[in-house]
Amino acid sequence: MKGRLITVEGGEGAGKTTVLNTIEACLRERGVDLLRTREPGGTELAEAIRALMLDPRHRHMCAEAELLLVFAGRAQHVREVIQPALAAGRWILSDRYVDASYAYQGGGRGLDRDWIADLDRRTTLGIAPDLTLLLDLDPAIGRSRQQQRGPGDRIEREVDSFFERVRDAYLERAASHPQRYRVIDASAAPAQVAAAAWAEVERLCDGS
Amino acid sequence: MKGRLITVEGGEGAGKTTVLNTIEACLRERGVDLLRTREPGGTELAEAIRALMLDPRHRHMCAEAELLLVFAGRAQHVREVIQPALAAGRWILSDRYVDASYAYQGGGRGLDRDWIADLDRRTTLGIAPDLTLLLDLDPAIGRSRQQQRGPGDRIEREVDSFFERVRDAYLERAASHPQRYRVIDASAAPAQVAAAAWAEVERLCDGS
Repeated sequence: MKGRLITVEGGEGAGKTTVLNTIEACLRERGVDLLRTREPGGTELAEAIRALMLDPRHRHMCAEAELLLVFAGRAQHVREVIQPALAAGRWILSDRYVDASYAYQGGGRGLDRDWIADLDRRTTLGIAPDLTLLLDLDPAIGRSRQQQRGPGDRIEREVDSFFERVRDAYLERAASHPQRYRVIDASAAPAQVAAAAWAEVERLCDGS
Repeated sequence: MKGRLITVEGGEGAGKTTVLNTIEACLRERGVDLLRTREPGGTELAEAIRALMLDPRHRHMCAEAELLLVFAGRAQHVREVIQPALAAGRWILSDRYVDASYAYQGGGRGLDRDWIADLDRRTTLGIAPDLTLLLDLDPAIGRSRQQQRGPGDRIEREVDSFFERVRDAYLERAASHPQRYRVIDASAAPAQVAAAAWAEVERLCDGS
Protein backbone atom coordinates (compact mmCIF):
# COMPACT_ATOMS: atom_id res chain seq x y z
CA MET A 1 0.00 0.00 0.00
CA LYS A 2 1.40 3.32 -1.14
CA GLY A 3 1.08 6.48 0.93
CA ARG A 4 -0.16 9.68 -0.61
CA LEU A 5 0.57 13.32 0.02
CA ILE A 6 -2.26 15.76 -0.61
CA THR A 7 -1.60 19.47 -0.13
CA VAL A 8 -3.99 22.40 -0.01
CA GLU A 9 -2.60 25.76 -1.05
CA GLY A 10 -4.01 29.25 -1.39
CA GLY A 11 -3.88 32.80 -0.12
CA GLU A 12 -5.48 34.31 2.95
CA GLY A 13 -9.25 33.89 3.31
CA ALA A 14 -9.53 31.35 0.49
CA GLY A 15 -11.33 28.85 2.71
CA LYS A 16 -8.54 26.34 3.25
CA THR A 17 -9.80 25.26 6.67
CA THR A 18 -13.27 24.26 5.44
CA VAL A 19 -11.74 22.35 2.55
CA LEU A 20 -9.23 20.59 4.81
CA ASN A 21 -11.93 19.64 7.33
CA THR A 22 -14.12 18.24 4.57
CA ILE A 23 -11.36 16.20 2.97
CA GLU A 24 -10.23 14.87 6.34
CA ALA A 25 -13.75 13.81 7.32
CA CYS A 26 -14.46 12.17 3.96
CA LEU A 27 -11.14 10.29 3.86
CA ARG A 28 -11.59 9.01 7.42
CA GLU A 29 -15.08 7.86 6.52
CA ARG A 30 -13.53 5.82 3.71
CA GLY A 31 -11.21 4.22 6.27
CA VAL A 32 -8.03 5.92 5.06
CA ASP A 33 -5.22 5.99 7.66
CA LEU A 34 -4.77 9.77 7.53
CA LEU A 35 -2.27 12.16 9.06
CA ARG A 36 -3.29 15.81 8.98
CA THR A 37 -0.50 18.36 9.26
CA ARG A 38 0.50 21.85 8.23
CA GLU A 39 3.34 24.13 7.15
CA PRO A 40 4.96 26.07 8.49
CA GLY A 41 4.77 23.58 11.37
CA GLY A 42 3.95 19.94 11.87
CA THR A 43 6.59 19.10 14.49
CA GLU A 44 7.42 20.64 17.87
CA LEU A 45 10.46 22.44 16.43
CA ALA A 46 8.69 23.51 13.25
CA GLU A 47 5.73 24.86 15.23
CA ALA A 48 8.14 26.94 17.32
CA ILE A 49 9.70 28.24 14.09
CA ARG A 50 6.20 29.03 12.79
CA ALA A 51 5.43 31.06 15.91
CA LEU A 52 8.63 33.09 15.40
CA MET A 53 7.92 33.57 11.72
CA LEU A 54 4.36 34.81 12.10
CA ASP A 55 4.89 36.96 15.21
CA PRO A 56 4.00 40.56 14.21
CA ARG A 57 6.75 41.74 16.59
CA HIS A 58 9.32 40.55 14.04
CA ARG A 59 8.07 42.98 11.37
CA HIS A 60 11.65 43.86 10.37
CA MET A 61 12.45 40.25 9.42
CA CYS A 62 14.36 40.24 6.14
CA ALA A 63 13.08 38.11 3.26
CA GLU A 64 16.13 35.84 3.40
CA ALA A 65 15.57 35.03 7.09
CA GLU A 66 11.91 34.29 6.38
CA LEU A 67 12.83 31.90 3.56
CA LEU A 68 15.43 30.06 5.63
CA LEU A 69 13.11 29.76 8.64
CA VAL A 70 10.40 28.22 6.49
CA PHE A 71 12.81 25.71 4.98
CA ALA A 72 14.35 24.89 8.38
CA GLY A 73 10.91 23.88 9.60
CA ARG A 74 10.24 22.00 6.36
CA ALA A 75 13.48 19.99 6.60
CA GLN A 76 12.42 18.84 10.06
CA HIS A 77 8.79 18.23 9.06
CA VAL A 78 9.76 16.08 6.07
CA ARG A 79 12.26 13.96 8.02
CA GLU A 80 10.30 13.58 11.25
CA VAL A 81 6.73 13.30 9.92
CA ILE A 82 6.14 13.18 6.16
CA GLN A 83 8.78 10.71 5.03
CA PRO A 84 8.10 8.15 7.81
CA ALA A 85 4.33 8.40 7.34
CA LEU A 86 4.57 7.86 3.57
CA ALA A 87 6.96 4.97 4.13
CA ALA A 88 4.36 3.40 6.42
CA GLY A 89 1.74 3.69 3.68
CA ARG A 90 -0.23 6.45 5.39
CA TRP A 91 -2.00 9.29 3.63
CA ILE A 92 -1.01 12.84 4.52
CA LEU A 93 -3.17 15.92 4.21
CA SER A 94 -1.13 19.08 4.63
CA ASP A 95 -2.26 22.67 4.95
CA ARG A 96 0.47 24.08 2.65
CA TYR A 97 3.81 22.57 1.66
CA VAL A 98 6.81 23.55 -0.48
CA ASP A 99 4.72 25.26 -3.18
CA ALA A 100 3.92 27.96 -0.62
CA SER A 101 7.59 29.00 -0.60
CA TYR A 102 7.56 29.51 -4.36
CA ALA A 103 4.42 31.63 -3.94
CA TYR A 104 5.15 33.62 -0.75
CA GLN A 105 8.93 33.93 -0.67
CA GLY A 106 9.42 33.66 -4.45
CA GLY A 107 6.41 35.62 -5.76
CA GLY A 108 5.59 37.71 -2.70
CA ARG A 109 9.12 38.58 -1.56
CA GLY A 110 10.78 38.39 -4.97
CA LEU A 111 13.54 36.00 -3.89
CA ASP A 112 15.49 34.04 -6.49
CA ARG A 113 13.46 31.01 -7.70
CA ASP A 114 16.66 29.07 -8.32
CA TRP A 115 17.56 29.42 -4.64
CA ILE A 116 14.11 28.19 -3.63
CA ALA A 117 14.38 25.24 -6.03
CA ASP A 118 17.79 24.39 -4.53
CA LEU A 119 16.40 24.50 -0.97
CA ASP A 120 13.46 22.40 -2.15
CA ARG A 121 15.83 19.72 -3.51
CA ARG A 122 17.96 19.77 -0.38
CA THR A 123 15.16 19.56 2.20
CA THR A 124 12.23 17.58 0.78
CA LEU A 125 14.01 14.26 0.04
CA GLY A 126 12.36 14.29 -3.36
CA ILE A 127 8.88 14.13 -1.86
CA ALA A 128 6.42 16.05 -4.02
CA PRO A 129 2.65 16.00 -3.47
CA ASP A 130 0.51 13.49 -5.32
CA LEU A 131 -2.26 16.07 -5.50
CA THR A 132 -2.22 19.81 -4.82
CA LEU A 133 -5.47 21.73 -4.56
CA LEU A 134 -4.98 25.42 -5.20
CA LEU A 135 -7.86 27.48 -3.85
CA ASP A 136 -7.67 30.44 -6.18
CA LEU A 137 -9.24 33.74 -5.14
CA ASP A 138 -8.95 37.44 -5.88
CA PRO A 139 -6.80 38.66 -2.96
CA ALA A 140 -9.16 41.61 -2.35
CA ILE A 141 -11.97 39.16 -1.56
CA GLY A 142 -9.69 36.94 0.53
CA ARG A 143 -8.53 39.97 2.45
CA SER A 144 -12.02 41.17 3.30
CA ARG A 145 -12.91 37.66 4.53
CA GLN A 146 -9.69 37.40 6.53
CA GLN A 147 -10.02 40.82 8.19
CA GLN A 148 -13.21 39.75 9.89
CA ARG A 149 -11.02 37.42 11.96
CA GLY A 150 -8.84 40.15 13.51
CA PRO A 151 -5.62 42.04 12.84
CA GLY A 152 -3.79 38.99 11.48
CA ASP A 153 -0.25 37.65 11.77
CA ARG A 154 2.95 39.14 10.32
CA ILE A 155 2.26 37.79 6.81
CA GLU A 156 -1.45 38.62 6.84
CA ARG A 157 -0.53 42.26 7.50
CA GLU A 158 1.27 42.54 4.15
CA VAL A 159 0.13 45.00 1.47
CA ASP A 160 -2.29 44.06 -1.33
CA SER A 161 0.38 43.95 -4.04
CA PHE A 162 2.18 41.24 -2.03
CA PHE A 163 -0.88 38.98 -2.21
CA GLU A 164 -1.34 39.70 -5.93
CA ARG A 165 2.20 38.43 -6.51
CA VAL A 166 1.53 35.37 -4.31
CA ARG A 167 -1.54 34.53 -6.38
CA ASP A 168 0.29 34.95 -9.68
CA ALA A 169 3.14 32.73 -8.49
CA TYR A 170 0.70 30.02 -7.37
CA LEU A 171 -1.04 30.09 -10.77
CA GLU A 172 2.33 29.88 -12.57
CA ARG A 173 3.27 26.95 -10.38
CA ALA A 174 -0.05 25.21 -11.17
CA ALA A 175 0.48 25.79 -14.91
CA SER A 176 3.95 24.25 -14.78
CA HIS A 177 2.82 21.20 -12.75
CA PRO A 178 -0.52 20.33 -14.38
CA GLN A 179 -0.30 16.63 -13.46
CA ARG A 180 -0.65 17.13 -9.73
CA TYR A 181 -2.26 20.61 -9.50
CA ARG A 182 -5.97 21.29 -9.55
CA VAL A 183 -7.07 24.92 -9.47
CA ILE A 184 -10.36 25.43 -7.66
CA ASP A 185 -12.37 28.64 -7.90
CA ALA A 186 -12.56 29.74 -4.26
CA SER A 187 -14.98 32.61 -4.89
CA ALA A 188 -17.92 30.19 -4.75
CA ALA A 189 -19.83 29.33 -1.56
CA PRO A 190 -17.72 27.37 0.97
CA ALA A 191 -19.77 24.17 0.61
CA GLN A 192 -19.39 24.30 -3.17
CA VAL A 193 -15.62 24.86 -2.92
CA ALA A 194 -15.31 21.96 -0.47
CA ALA A 195 -17.36 19.71 -2.78
CA ALA A 196 -15.15 20.57 -5.76
CA ALA A 197 -12.04 19.85 -3.67
CA TRP A 198 -13.37 16.53 -2.43
CA ALA A 199 -14.26 15.47 -5.97
CA GLU A 200 -10.57 15.78 -6.88
CA VAL A 201 -9.45 13.77 -3.86
CA GLU A 202 -12.06 11.12 -4.61
CA ARG A 203 -10.63 10.76 -8.11
CA LEU A 204 -7.20 10.18 -6.54
CA CYS A 205 -8.68 7.52 -4.20
CA ASP A 206 -10.36 5.68 -7.05
CA GLY A 207 -7.25 5.76 -9.17
CA SER A 208 -5.07 4.26 -6.46
CA MET B 1 37.02 56.02 8.37
CA LYS B 2 36.57 52.36 7.52
CA GLY B 3 34.75 49.96 9.81
CA ARG B 4 36.31 46.63 10.72
CA LEU B 5 34.90 43.22 11.51
CA ILE B 6 36.85 41.10 13.98
CA THR B 7 35.58 37.61 14.75
CA VAL B 8 36.61 35.16 17.44
CA GLU B 9 36.09 31.48 16.67
CA GLY B 10 36.77 28.26 18.49
CA GLY B 11 35.25 25.21 20.10
CA GLU B 12 33.71 24.78 23.53
CA GLY B 13 35.88 25.77 26.50
CA ALA B 14 38.55 27.47 24.37
CA GLY B 15 38.31 30.70 26.39
CA LYS B 16 36.45 32.86 23.90
CA THR B 17 34.78 35.00 26.57
CA THR B 18 38.04 36.07 28.25
CA VAL B 19 39.53 36.91 24.87
CA LEU B 20 36.45 38.87 23.79
CA ASN B 21 36.35 40.80 27.07
CA THR B 22 40.03 41.69 26.77
CA ILE B 23 39.78 42.85 23.17
CA GLU B 24 36.67 44.86 23.91
CA ALA B 25 38.27 46.62 26.90
CA CYS B 26 41.51 47.38 25.03
CA LEU B 27 39.73 48.70 21.94
CA ARG B 28 37.46 50.94 24.01
CA GLU B 29 40.48 52.25 25.84
CA ARG B 30 41.91 53.23 22.47
CA GLY B 31 38.70 55.15 21.75
CA VAL B 32 37.41 52.78 19.08
CA ASP B 33 33.64 53.02 18.44
CA LEU B 34 32.97 49.34 19.04
CA LEU B 35 29.93 47.14 18.65
CA ARG B 36 30.14 43.76 20.37
CA THR B 37 27.83 41.07 19.10
CA ARG B 38 27.54 37.30 18.67
CA GLU B 39 26.29 34.48 16.50
CA PRO B 40 23.97 32.79 16.55
CA GLY B 41 22.21 35.95 17.70
CA GLY B 42 22.83 39.67 17.63
CA THR B 43 19.25 40.82 16.91
CA GLU B 44 15.96 40.16 18.67
CA LEU B 45 14.91 37.66 15.99
CA ALA B 46 18.33 36.01 15.78
CA GLU B 47 18.50 35.63 19.57
CA ALA B 48 15.10 33.91 19.50
CA ILE B 49 16.43 31.59 16.78
CA ARG B 50 19.54 30.94 18.91
CA ALA B 51 17.36 29.96 21.85
CA LEU B 52 15.48 27.46 19.65
CA MET B 53 18.68 26.10 18.18
CA LEU B 54 20.46 25.48 21.47
CA ASP B 55 17.47 24.21 23.44
CA PRO B 56 18.32 20.63 24.53
CA ARG B 57 14.63 19.78 24.13
CA HIS B 58 15.12 19.88 20.35
CA ARG B 59 17.61 17.01 20.40
CA HIS B 60 16.00 15.43 17.32
CA MET B 61 16.71 18.51 15.19
CA CYS B 62 18.01 17.39 11.81
CA ALA B 63 21.31 18.82 10.52
CA GLU B 64 19.57 20.61 7.65
CA ALA B 65 17.20 22.45 10.01
CA GLU B 66 20.14 23.45 12.21
CA LEU B 67 22.04 24.86 9.22
CA LEU B 68 19.05 26.82 7.94
CA LEU B 69 18.25 28.22 11.38
CA VAL B 70 21.81 29.48 11.80
CA PHE B 71 21.77 31.14 8.39
CA ALA B 72 18.30 32.63 8.97
CA GLY B 73 19.67 34.38 12.04
CA ARG B 74 22.82 35.39 10.15
CA ALA B 75 20.85 36.96 7.28
CA GLN B 76 19.02 39.12 9.81
CA HIS B 77 22.16 39.92 11.84
CA VAL B 78 24.11 41.04 8.77
CA ARG B 79 21.33 43.25 7.42
CA GLU B 80 20.14 44.74 10.71
CA VAL B 81 23.43 45.11 12.58
CA ILE B 82 26.70 44.29 10.82
CA GLN B 83 26.22 45.99 7.45
CA PRO B 84 24.87 49.29 8.91
CA ALA B 85 27.58 49.42 11.60
CA LEU B 86 30.38 48.88 9.07
CA ALA B 87 28.83 51.48 6.76
CA ALA B 88 28.91 53.94 9.69
CA GLY B 89 32.62 53.25 10.18
CA ARG B 90 32.18 51.33 13.43
CA TRP B 91 34.28 48.38 14.52
CA ILE B 92 32.51 45.12 15.23
CA LEU B 93 33.71 42.38 17.54
CA SER B 94 31.69 39.20 17.06
CA ASP B 95 31.69 36.02 19.11
CA ARG B 96 31.54 33.70 16.04
CA TYR B 97 30.39 34.43 12.50
CA VAL B 98 30.01 32.53 9.21
CA ASP B 99 33.18 30.42 9.70
CA ALA B 100 31.36 28.66 12.53
CA SER B 101 28.89 27.19 10.02
CA TYR B 102 31.73 25.70 7.97
CA ALA B 103 33.10 24.19 11.20
CA TYR B 104 29.95 23.06 13.05
CA GLN B 105 27.46 22.29 10.27
CA GLY B 106 30.08 21.47 7.62
CA GLY B 107 32.72 19.66 9.68
CA GLY B 108 30.62 18.59 12.67
CA ARG B 109 27.41 17.60 10.86
CA GLY B 110 29.00 16.65 7.55
CA LEU B 111 26.74 18.85 5.43
CA ASP B 112 27.77 19.75 1.88
CA ARG B 113 30.37 22.59 1.91
CA ASP B 114 29.07 23.87 -1.42
CA TRP B 115 25.66 24.38 0.14
CA ILE B 116 27.21 26.28 3.03
CA ALA B 117 29.25 28.42 0.63
CA ASP B 118 26.08 29.18 -1.34
CA LEU B 119 24.21 30.22 1.83
CA ASP B 120 27.25 32.30 2.83
CA ARG B 121 27.14 34.18 -0.49
CA ARG B 122 23.40 34.71 -0.31
CA THR B 123 23.22 35.95 3.29
CA THR B 124 26.41 37.85 4.19
CA LEU B 125 26.30 40.58 1.51
CA GLY B 126 29.93 39.85 0.76
CA ILE B 127 30.98 40.87 4.28
CA ALA B 128 33.96 38.75 5.42
CA PRO B 129 35.91 39.44 8.62
CA ASP B 130 39.02 41.64 8.49
CA LEU B 131 40.55 39.48 11.21
CA THR B 132 39.54 36.10 12.58
CA LEU B 133 41.11 34.77 15.74
CA LEU B 134 40.82 31.01 15.98
CA LEU B 135 41.31 29.78 19.54
CA ASP B 136 42.58 26.30 18.83
CA LEU B 137 42.36 23.65 21.53
CA ASP B 138 42.26 19.88 21.88
CA PRO B 139 38.50 19.21 22.26
CA ALA B 140 39.16 16.87 25.21
CA ILE B 141 40.64 19.79 27.17
CA GLY B 142 37.89 22.17 26.05
CA ARG B 143 35.29 19.66 27.10
CA SER B 144 36.69 19.19 30.59
CA ARG B 145 36.75 22.99 31.04
CA GLN B 146 33.24 23.35 29.69
CA GLN B 147 31.72 20.60 31.81
CA GLN B 148 32.56 22.48 34.96
CA ARG B 149 29.90 24.98 33.87
CA GLY B 150 27.00 22.51 33.86
CA PRO B 151 25.23 20.09 31.51
CA GLY B 152 25.52 22.39 28.47
CA ASP B 153 23.22 23.29 25.55
CA ARG B 154 22.15 21.05 22.66
CA ILE B 155 25.44 21.49 20.79
CA GLU B 156 27.65 21.19 23.87
CA ARG B 157 26.08 17.78 24.52
CA GLU B 158 27.48 16.38 21.27
CA VAL B 159 29.92 13.46 21.23
CA ASP B 160 33.71 13.93 21.22
CA SER B 161 34.13 12.95 17.57
CA PHE B 162 31.82 15.84 16.63
CA PHE B 163 34.18 18.34 18.25
CA GLU B 164 37.21 16.71 16.62
CA ARG B 165 35.59 17.31 13.23
CA VAL B 166 34.73 20.90 14.21
CA ARG B 167 38.36 21.55 15.14
CA ASP B 168 39.67 20.02 11.91
CA ALA B 169 37.25 22.09 9.83
CA TYR B 170 38.29 25.29 11.62
CA LEU B 171 41.97 24.54 10.98
CA GLU B 172 41.25 23.82 7.30
CA ARG B 173 39.37 27.09 7.05
CA ALA B 174 42.29 28.93 8.66
CA ALA B 175 44.74 27.33 6.24
CA SER B 176 42.68 28.38 3.23
CA HIS B 177 42.23 31.98 4.46
CA PRO B 178 45.69 32.82 5.83
CA GLN B 179 45.34 36.56 5.21
CA ARG B 180 42.63 37.11 7.80
CA TYR B 181 43.02 34.08 10.08
CA ARG B 182 45.31 33.91 13.09
CA VAL B 183 45.45 30.60 14.96
CA ILE B 184 46.07 31.02 18.68
CA ASP B 185 47.11 28.16 20.93
CA ALA B 186 44.32 28.13 23.52
CA SER B 187 45.94 25.55 25.77
CA ALA B 188 48.00 28.28 27.46
CA ALA B 189 46.85 30.18 30.57
CA PRO B 190 43.85 32.48 29.89
CA ALA B 191 45.84 35.71 30.39
CA GLN B 192 48.46 34.51 27.93
CA VAL B 193 45.82 33.55 25.33
CA ALA B 194 44.15 36.94 25.74
CA ALA B 195 47.49 38.74 25.34
CA ALA B 196 48.27 36.83 22.15
CA ALA B 197 44.82 37.66 20.79
CA TRP B 198 45.13 41.34 21.65
CA ALA B 199 48.54 41.51 19.97
CA GLU B 200 46.88 40.49 16.69
CA VAL B 201 44.13 43.07 17.06
CA GLU B 202 46.68 45.76 17.90
CA ARG B 203 48.49 44.95 14.67
CA LEU B 204 45.22 45.48 12.80
CA CYS B 205 44.71 48.82 14.59
CA ASP B 206 48.17 50.05 13.72
CA GLY B 207 47.80 48.98 10.11
CA SER B 208 44.54 50.84 9.59
